[in-house]
Amino acid sequence: MKLYDNQHAPNPRRARIFMAEKGISYDNIQVDIVAAENLSVDFLGVNPRGVLPTLVLDDGTILDESTAICRYFEEIKPEPVLMGTDPISKAKIESRQRHIEFDGLLRAQEVFRNSYRGFAKRGLGGNVGEVAAIPELAERGKLLLVQFYRDLNNYLARFEYAAGELFSIADITALCTIDFGSTAARLPIPDGLKDLKRWHSLVKARPSAKA
Amino acid sequence: MKLYDNQHAPNPRRARIFMAEKGISYDNIQVDIVAAENLSVDFLGVNPRGVLPTLVLDDGTILDESTAICRYFEEIKPEPVLMGTDPISKAKIESRQRHIEFDGLLRAQEVFRNSYRGFAKRGLGGNVGEVAAIPELAERGKLLLVQFYRDLNNYLARFEYAAGELFSIADITALCTIDFGSTAARLPIPDGLKDLKRWHSLVKARPSAKA
Repeated sequence: MKLYDNQHAPNPRRARIFMAEKGISYDNIQVDIVAAENLSVDFLGVNPRGVLPTLVLDDGTILDESTAICRYFEEIKPEPVLMGTDPISKAKIESRQRHIEFDGLLRAQEVFRNSYRGFAKRGLGGNVGEVAAIPELAERGKLLLVQFYRDLNNYLARFEYAAGELFSIADITALCTIDFGSTAARLPIPDGLKDLKRWHSLVKARPSAKA
Repeated sequence: MKLYDNQHAPNPRRARIFMAEKGISYDNIQVDIVAAENLSVDFLGVNPRGVLPTLVLDDGTILDESTAICRYFEEIKPEPVLMGTDPISKAKIESRQRHIEFDGLLRAQEVFRNSYRGFAKRGLGGNVGEVAAIPELAERGKLLLVQFYRDLNNYLARFEYAAGELFSIADITALCTIDFGSTAARLPIPDGLKDLKRWHSLVKARPSAKA
Protein backbone atom coordinates (compact mmCIF):
# COMPACT_ATOMS: atom_id res chain seq x y z
CA MET A 1 0.00 0.00 0.00
CA LYS A 2 1.37 3.42 -1.00
CA LEU A 3 0.48 6.86 0.27
CA TYR A 4 1.40 9.77 -1.99
CA ASP A 5 2.01 12.42 0.61
CA ASN A 6 3.41 15.87 1.32
CA GLN A 7 4.94 16.59 4.68
CA HIS A 8 3.78 20.22 4.85
CA ALA A 9 0.21 20.08 3.58
CA PRO A 10 -2.70 19.68 6.00
CA ASN A 11 -4.85 17.12 4.16
CA PRO A 12 -2.12 14.46 3.76
CA ARG A 13 -1.30 14.94 7.45
CA ARG A 14 -4.91 14.17 8.36
CA ALA A 15 -4.57 10.78 6.65
CA ARG A 16 -1.13 10.09 8.19
CA ILE A 17 -2.31 10.81 11.74
CA PHE A 18 -5.45 8.71 11.25
CA MET A 19 -3.37 5.79 9.96
CA ALA A 20 -0.90 6.18 12.86
CA GLU A 21 -3.78 6.03 15.36
CA LYS A 22 -4.93 2.80 13.70
CA GLY A 23 -1.39 1.36 13.58
CA ILE A 24 -1.42 0.99 9.80
CA SER A 25 1.90 0.91 7.93
CA TYR A 26 2.46 1.88 4.30
CA ASP A 27 5.06 3.09 1.84
CA ASN A 28 5.32 6.85 1.91
CA ILE A 29 6.04 8.67 -1.33
CA GLN A 30 6.74 12.37 -0.96
CA VAL A 31 5.38 14.69 -3.65
CA ASP A 32 6.62 18.30 -3.60
CA ILE A 33 3.59 20.55 -4.13
CA VAL A 34 5.55 23.83 -4.19
CA ALA A 35 7.70 22.39 -7.01
CA ALA A 36 4.45 21.28 -8.74
CA GLU A 37 5.37 17.59 -8.70
CA ASN A 38 1.68 16.91 -8.05
CA LEU A 39 1.02 18.33 -11.53
CA SER A 40 3.77 16.31 -13.23
CA VAL A 41 2.92 13.78 -15.94
CA ASP A 42 4.08 11.01 -13.60
CA PHE A 43 1.80 11.94 -10.74
CA LEU A 44 -1.19 12.78 -12.94
CA GLY A 45 -0.78 9.23 -14.26
CA VAL A 46 -1.47 8.05 -10.70
CA ASN A 47 -4.21 10.56 -9.91
CA PRO A 48 -5.48 12.84 -12.69
CA ARG A 49 -6.88 15.24 -10.08
CA GLY A 50 -3.34 16.00 -8.90
CA VAL A 51 -4.27 16.09 -5.22
CA LEU A 52 -2.72 14.71 -2.05
CA PRO A 53 -3.12 12.49 -0.17
CA THR A 54 -3.63 9.73 -2.72
CA LEU A 55 -3.72 6.16 -1.48
CA VAL A 56 -2.93 3.25 -3.80
CA LEU A 57 -3.96 -0.15 -2.47
CA ASP A 58 -2.05 -3.32 -3.34
CA ASP A 59 -4.72 -4.28 -5.89
CA GLY A 60 -4.28 -0.92 -7.64
CA THR A 61 -7.41 0.72 -6.24
CA ILE A 62 -6.90 4.46 -5.93
CA LEU A 63 -8.51 6.60 -3.25
CA ASP A 64 -8.15 10.31 -2.73
CA GLU A 65 -9.78 12.80 -0.32
CA SER A 66 -8.49 12.43 3.21
CA THR A 67 -11.87 11.66 4.80
CA ALA A 68 -12.57 8.93 2.23
CA ILE A 69 -9.17 7.37 3.00
CA CYS A 70 -9.98 7.56 6.71
CA ARG A 71 -13.39 6.00 6.09
CA TYR A 72 -11.73 3.02 4.38
CA PHE A 73 -9.46 2.37 7.36
CA GLU A 74 -12.25 2.90 9.89
CA GLU A 75 -14.16 0.17 8.04
CA ILE A 76 -11.34 -2.37 7.72
CA LYS A 77 -9.83 -1.72 11.16
CA PRO A 78 -12.52 -0.34 13.47
CA GLU A 79 -10.32 -0.07 16.60
CA PRO A 80 -9.57 2.47 17.94
CA VAL A 81 -12.89 4.01 16.91
CA LEU A 82 -12.33 7.47 15.40
CA MET A 83 -15.59 8.09 13.52
CA GLY A 84 -18.23 7.17 16.11
CA THR A 85 -19.90 4.01 17.37
CA ASP A 86 -23.64 4.55 16.89
CA PRO A 87 -25.84 6.58 14.50
CA ILE A 88 -25.86 9.72 16.65
CA SER A 89 -22.15 9.76 17.49
CA LYS A 90 -21.24 9.02 13.86
CA ALA A 91 -23.41 11.89 12.64
CA LYS A 92 -22.20 14.31 15.35
CA ILE A 93 -18.55 13.60 14.64
CA GLU A 94 -19.14 14.07 10.91
CA SER A 95 -20.99 17.31 11.58
CA ARG A 96 -18.25 18.67 13.86
CA GLN A 97 -15.55 17.66 11.43
CA ARG A 98 -17.25 19.55 8.65
CA HIS A 99 -17.62 22.64 10.82
CA ILE A 100 -13.85 22.49 11.34
CA GLU A 101 -13.16 21.93 7.66
CA PHE A 102 -15.41 24.66 6.31
CA ASP A 103 -14.98 27.25 9.06
CA GLY A 104 -11.28 26.60 9.70
CA LEU A 105 -9.27 24.51 7.27
CA LEU A 106 -10.69 26.02 4.08
CA ARG A 107 -9.95 29.50 5.48
CA ALA A 108 -6.35 28.65 6.37
CA GLN A 109 -5.88 27.23 2.88
CA GLU A 110 -7.38 30.37 1.33
CA VAL A 111 -4.93 32.51 3.29
CA PHE A 112 -1.93 30.47 2.18
CA ARG A 113 -2.91 29.88 -1.45
CA ASN A 114 -3.77 33.53 -2.01
CA SER A 115 -0.80 35.13 -0.27
CA TYR A 116 2.20 32.83 -0.84
CA ARG A 117 4.13 34.22 -3.82
CA GLY A 118 4.95 30.82 -5.29
CA PHE A 119 1.21 30.21 -5.78
CA ALA A 120 0.40 33.48 -7.57
CA LYS A 121 -1.03 31.42 -10.46
CA ARG A 122 -2.09 28.42 -8.37
CA GLY A 123 -4.79 29.89 -6.16
CA LEU A 124 -6.43 26.49 -5.84
CA GLY A 125 -4.85 23.09 -5.27
CA GLY A 126 -4.96 20.21 -7.71
CA ASN A 127 -5.12 19.92 -11.49
CA VAL A 128 -7.45 22.84 -12.21
CA GLY A 129 -5.24 24.86 -14.56
CA GLU A 130 -4.01 28.37 -13.92
CA VAL A 131 -6.00 30.10 -11.15
CA ALA A 132 -4.89 33.61 -10.19
CA ALA A 133 -4.51 34.31 -6.48
CA ILE A 134 -7.12 36.71 -5.05
CA PRO A 135 -5.51 38.83 -2.30
CA GLU A 136 -8.91 39.78 -0.83
CA LEU A 137 -9.55 36.11 -0.22
CA ALA A 138 -6.42 35.88 1.91
CA GLU A 139 -7.51 38.93 3.92
CA ARG A 140 -11.00 37.52 4.39
CA GLY A 141 -9.51 34.18 5.40
CA LYS A 142 -7.41 35.74 8.17
CA LEU A 143 -10.43 37.31 9.84
CA LEU A 144 -12.48 34.14 9.55
CA LEU A 145 -9.67 31.92 10.83
CA VAL A 146 -9.38 33.99 14.01
CA GLN A 147 -13.15 33.72 14.42
CA PHE A 148 -12.83 29.94 14.01
CA TYR A 149 -10.18 29.80 16.74
CA ARG A 150 -12.52 31.64 19.09
CA ASP A 151 -15.47 29.41 18.28
CA LEU A 152 -13.40 26.27 18.79
CA ASN A 153 -12.08 27.68 22.08
CA ASN A 154 -15.68 28.18 23.23
CA TYR A 155 -16.58 24.63 22.26
CA LEU A 156 -13.53 23.27 24.09
CA ALA A 157 -14.54 25.15 27.24
CA ARG A 158 -17.49 22.75 27.34
CA PHE A 159 -16.03 19.56 25.91
CA GLU A 160 -12.72 17.74 26.28
CA TYR A 161 -12.30 17.12 22.53
CA ALA A 162 -13.33 18.70 19.23
CA ALA A 163 -16.44 16.51 18.84
CA GLY A 164 -17.39 15.75 22.43
CA GLU A 165 -15.78 13.70 25.19
CA LEU A 166 -13.77 11.28 23.05
CA PHE A 167 -10.82 11.75 20.70
CA SER A 168 -11.98 11.45 17.08
CA ILE A 169 -11.23 12.31 13.47
CA ALA A 170 -12.54 15.81 14.26
CA ASP A 171 -9.53 16.37 16.54
CA ILE A 172 -7.18 15.27 13.78
CA THR A 173 -8.75 17.74 11.36
CA ALA A 174 -8.64 20.51 13.99
CA LEU A 175 -4.99 19.83 14.84
CA CYS A 176 -3.97 19.91 11.18
CA THR A 177 -5.98 23.11 10.68
CA ILE A 178 -4.40 24.91 13.62
CA ASP A 179 -0.84 23.83 12.90
CA PHE A 180 -1.22 24.78 9.24
CA GLY A 181 -2.92 28.04 10.24
CA SER A 182 -0.04 28.79 12.64
CA THR A 183 2.71 28.17 10.08
CA ALA A 184 1.49 28.60 6.50
CA ALA A 185 -1.18 31.20 7.29
CA ARG A 186 0.98 32.76 10.05
CA LEU A 187 -1.87 32.90 12.54
CA PRO A 188 -0.91 31.07 15.73
CA ILE A 189 -3.50 30.52 18.48
CA PRO A 190 -4.19 34.00 19.91
CA ASP A 191 -3.34 34.71 23.54
CA GLY A 192 -6.23 34.23 25.91
CA LEU A 193 -7.76 31.21 24.21
CA LYS A 194 -6.81 28.93 27.07
CA ASP A 195 -9.16 26.07 26.33
CA LEU A 196 -7.90 25.85 22.77
CA LYS A 197 -4.32 25.82 24.07
CA ARG A 198 -5.17 23.14 26.66
CA TRP A 199 -6.66 20.95 23.95
CA HIS A 200 -3.80 21.64 21.51
CA SER A 201 -1.18 20.47 24.05
CA LEU A 202 -3.24 17.38 24.79
CA VAL A 203 -3.66 16.34 21.15
CA LYS A 204 -0.14 17.33 20.10
CA ALA A 205 1.27 15.02 22.81
CA ARG A 206 -0.23 11.93 21.17
CA PRO A 207 2.41 9.88 19.30
CA SER A 208 0.26 10.07 16.14
CA ALA A 209 0.78 13.85 15.95
CA LYS A 210 4.34 13.21 14.78
CA ALA A 211 3.20 11.12 11.80
CA MET B 1 -38.57 15.28 13.83
CA LYS B 2 -38.18 18.72 12.27
CA LEU B 3 -36.10 19.81 9.29
CA TYR B 4 -35.30 23.52 9.07
CA ASP B 5 -35.09 23.91 5.34
CA ASN B 6 -34.94 26.32 2.44
CA GLN B 7 -36.55 25.38 -0.84
CA HIS B 8 -33.97 27.16 -3.04
CA ALA B 9 -30.65 26.30 -1.39
CA PRO B 10 -28.65 23.27 -2.54
CA ASN B 11 -27.56 21.81 0.82
CA PRO B 12 -31.05 21.50 2.31
CA ARG B 13 -32.17 19.89 -0.94
CA ARG B 14 -29.46 17.25 -0.57
CA ALA B 15 -30.94 16.25 2.78
CA ARG B 16 -34.53 16.32 1.47
CA ILE B 17 -33.76 14.09 -1.51
CA PHE B 18 -31.82 11.65 0.68
CA MET B 19 -34.71 11.44 3.13
CA ALA B 20 -37.19 10.98 0.27
CA GLU B 21 -35.12 8.07 -1.10
CA LYS B 22 -35.23 6.48 2.37
CA GLY B 23 -38.96 7.15 2.79
CA ILE B 24 -38.49 9.26 5.92
CA SER B 25 -41.16 11.78 6.87
CA TYR B 26 -40.64 14.90 8.96
CA ASP B 27 -42.04 18.35 9.68
CA ASN B 28 -40.65 20.88 7.25
CA ILE B 29 -39.98 24.41 8.50
CA GLN B 30 -39.06 26.90 5.80
CA VAL B 31 -36.41 29.49 6.66
CA ASP B 32 -35.96 32.36 4.18
CA ILE B 33 -32.21 32.85 3.67
CA VAL B 34 -32.51 35.88 1.37
CA ALA B 35 -34.59 37.61 4.08
CA ALA B 36 -31.91 36.55 6.62
CA GLU B 37 -34.34 34.50 8.70
CA ASN B 38 -31.46 32.05 9.25
CA LEU B 39 -29.70 34.85 11.16
CA SER B 40 -32.73 35.79 13.26
CA VAL B 41 -32.65 35.46 17.04
CA ASP B 42 -35.24 32.70 16.77
CA PHE B 43 -33.28 30.52 14.37
CA LEU B 44 -29.91 31.15 16.04
CA GLY B 45 -31.59 29.83 19.18
CA VAL B 46 -32.09 26.55 17.30
CA ASN B 47 -28.69 26.51 15.57
CA PRO B 48 -26.13 29.18 16.50
CA ARG B 49 -24.26 28.51 13.22
CA GLY B 50 -27.25 29.83 11.28
CA VAL B 51 -27.01 27.18 8.56
CA LEU B 52 -29.49 25.00 6.72
CA PRO B 53 -30.38 22.19 6.72
CA THR B 54 -30.72 21.76 10.48
CA LEU B 55 -32.41 18.61 11.75
CA VAL B 56 -33.99 18.49 15.20
CA LEU B 57 -34.77 14.99 16.45
CA ASP B 58 -37.69 14.28 18.77
CA ASP B 59 -35.32 14.08 21.77
CA GLY B 60 -33.98 17.55 20.97
CA THR B 61 -30.71 16.40 19.37
CA ILE B 62 -29.61 18.89 16.73
CA LEU B 63 -27.68 17.94 13.60
CA ASP B 64 -26.46 20.20 10.86
CA GLU B 65 -24.32 19.61 7.73
CA SER B 66 -26.21 17.75 5.03
CA THR B 67 -23.80 14.80 4.85
CA ALA B 68 -23.96 14.30 8.62
CA ILE B 69 -27.76 14.29 8.45
CA CYS B 70 -27.58 11.75 5.60
CA ARG B 71 -25.11 9.64 7.60
CA TYR B 72 -27.60 9.47 10.48
CA PHE B 73 -30.39 8.19 8.23
CA GLU B 74 -28.09 5.75 6.41
CA GLU B 75 -27.29 4.27 9.83
CA ILE B 76 -30.81 4.04 11.21
CA LYS B 77 -32.44 3.02 7.90
CA PRO B 78 -29.82 1.29 5.73
CA GLU B 79 -32.18 0.50 2.82
CA PRO B 80 -31.96 1.62 0.09
CA VAL B 81 -28.17 1.84 0.46
CA LEU B 82 -26.94 5.29 -0.64
CA MET B 83 -23.47 5.46 0.95
CA GLY B 84 -21.95 2.10 -0.02
CA THR B 85 -22.06 -1.46 1.24
CA ASP B 86 -18.41 -2.44 1.89
CA PRO B 87 -15.19 -0.58 2.80
CA ILE B 88 -14.16 0.13 -0.79
CA SER B 89 -17.57 1.23 -2.06
CA LYS B 90 -18.11 3.41 1.03
CA ALA B 91 -14.75 5.11 0.54
CA LYS B 92 -15.21 5.52 -3.22
CA ILE B 93 -18.64 7.09 -2.83
CA GLU B 94 -17.32 9.45 -0.16
CA SER B 95 -14.39 10.35 -2.37
CA ARG B 96 -16.58 11.02 -5.41
CA GLN B 97 -19.03 13.03 -3.36
CA ARG B 98 -16.24 15.26 -2.12
CA HIS B 99 -14.94 15.78 -5.65
CA ILE B 100 -18.42 16.98 -6.56
CA GLU B 101 -18.69 19.20 -3.48
CA PHE B 102 -15.30 20.85 -3.78
CA ASP B 103 -15.00 21.03 -7.57
CA GLY B 104 -18.65 21.81 -8.26
CA LEU B 105 -20.94 22.81 -5.43
CA LEU B 106 -18.51 25.17 -3.68
CA ARG B 107 -17.88 26.89 -7.02
CA ALA B 108 -21.58 27.33 -7.77
CA GLN B 109 -22.05 28.77 -4.28
CA GLU B 110 -19.11 31.14 -4.81
CA VAL B 111 -20.68 32.40 -8.02
CA PHE B 112 -24.04 33.05 -6.40
CA ARG B 113 -22.84 34.47 -3.09
CA ASN B 114 -20.41 36.84 -4.78
CA SER B 115 -22.62 38.09 -7.59
CA TYR B 116 -26.19 38.25 -6.22
CA ARG B 117 -26.82 41.84 -5.11
CA GLY B 118 -28.76 40.90 -1.99
CA PHE B 119 -25.65 39.16 -0.65
CA ALA B 120 -23.22 42.05 -1.17
CA LYS B 121 -22.38 41.87 2.56
CA ARG B 122 -23.09 38.17 2.99
CA GLY B 123 -20.40 36.60 0.84
CA LEU B 124 -20.49 33.45 2.95
CA GLY B 125 -23.45 31.55 4.36
CA GLY B 126 -24.19 31.13 8.05
CA ASN B 127 -23.58 33.23 11.14
CA VAL B 128 -20.13 34.58 10.28
CA GLY B 129 -20.82 38.30 10.47
CA GLU B 130 -20.50 40.74 7.58
CA VAL B 131 -18.44 39.29 4.72
CA ALA B 132 -18.06 41.47 1.63
CA ALA B 133 -18.69 39.79 -1.71
CA ILE B 134 -15.56 39.35 -3.87
CA PRO B 135 -16.51 39.73 -7.55
CA GLU B 136 -13.32 37.97 -8.71
CA LEU B 137 -14.45 34.91 -6.80
CA ALA B 138 -17.67 34.82 -8.81
CA GLU B 139 -15.71 35.09 -12.06
CA ARG B 140 -13.30 32.36 -10.98
CA GLY B 141 -16.22 30.19 -9.93
CA LYS B 142 -17.88 30.41 -13.37
CA LEU B 143 -14.79 29.09 -15.14
CA LEU B 144 -14.30 26.30 -12.62
CA LEU B 145 -17.95 25.29 -12.69
CA VAL B 146 -17.83 24.80 -16.46
CA GLN B 147 -14.67 22.73 -15.99
CA PHE B 148 -16.52 20.66 -13.39
CA TYR B 149 -19.38 20.01 -15.84
CA ARG B 150 -16.86 18.76 -18.40
CA ASP B 151 -15.09 16.51 -15.90
CA LEU B 152 -18.38 15.05 -14.69
CA ASN B 153 -19.46 14.49 -18.31
CA ASN B 154 -16.24 12.55 -18.93
CA TYR B 155 -16.83 10.45 -15.83
CA LEU B 156 -20.42 9.74 -16.90
CA ALA B 157 -19.22 8.59 -20.30
CA ARG B 158 -17.65 5.67 -18.42
CA PHE B 159 -20.12 5.08 -15.58
CA GLU B 160 -23.88 5.11 -15.27
CA TYR B 161 -23.93 7.20 -12.09
CA ALA B 162 -21.79 9.84 -10.36
CA ALA B 163 -19.92 7.31 -8.21
CA GLY B 164 -20.00 4.17 -10.33
CA GLU B 165 -22.75 1.82 -11.43
CA LEU B 166 -25.25 2.44 -8.63
CA PHE B 167 -27.27 5.47 -7.60
CA SER B 168 -25.79 7.02 -4.44
CA ILE B 169 -25.51 10.14 -2.33
CA ALA B 170 -22.95 11.38 -4.88
CA ASP B 171 -25.74 11.63 -7.47
CA ILE B 172 -27.85 13.63 -5.05
CA THR B 173 -25.00 16.07 -4.47
CA ALA B 174 -24.32 16.31 -8.20
CA LEU B 175 -28.00 16.90 -9.05
CA CYS B 176 -28.26 19.68 -6.45
CA THR B 177 -25.02 21.21 -7.71
CA ILE B 178 -26.11 21.25 -11.35
CA ASP B 179 -29.63 22.51 -10.70
CA PHE B 180 -28.28 25.26 -8.41
CA GLY B 181 -25.52 26.03 -10.92
CA SER B 182 -28.13 26.28 -13.69
CA THR B 183 -30.41 28.65 -11.81
CA ALA B 184 -28.57 30.62 -9.12
CA ALA B 185 -25.21 30.68 -10.90
CA ARG B 186 -26.90 30.92 -14.34
CA LEU B 187 -24.72 28.25 -15.87
CA PRO B 188 -26.87 25.49 -17.35
CA ILE B 189 -25.26 22.31 -18.70
CA PRO B 190 -23.37 23.39 -21.83
CA ASP B 191 -24.40 21.96 -25.20
CA GLY B 192 -22.43 18.94 -26.26
CA LEU B 193 -22.10 17.35 -22.83
CA LYS B 194 -24.40 14.50 -23.78
CA ASP B 195 -23.44 12.07 -21.04
CA LEU B 196 -24.08 14.68 -18.38
CA LYS B 197 -27.45 15.41 -19.96
CA ARG B 198 -28.29 11.68 -20.14
CA TRP B 199 -27.49 11.29 -16.44
CA HIS B 200 -29.33 14.49 -15.48
CA SER B 201 -32.56 13.27 -17.13
CA LEU B 202 -32.20 9.90 -15.43
CA VAL B 203 -31.68 11.30 -11.93
CA LYS B 204 -34.21 14.11 -12.33
CA ALA B 205 -36.89 11.55 -13.20
CA ARG B 206 -36.65 9.87 -9.78
CA PRO B 207 -39.57 10.84 -7.51
CA SER B 208 -37.07 11.99 -4.85
CA ALA B 209 -35.85 14.80 -7.13
CA LYS B 210 -39.11 16.65 -6.41
CA ALA B 211 -38.51 16.63 -2.64
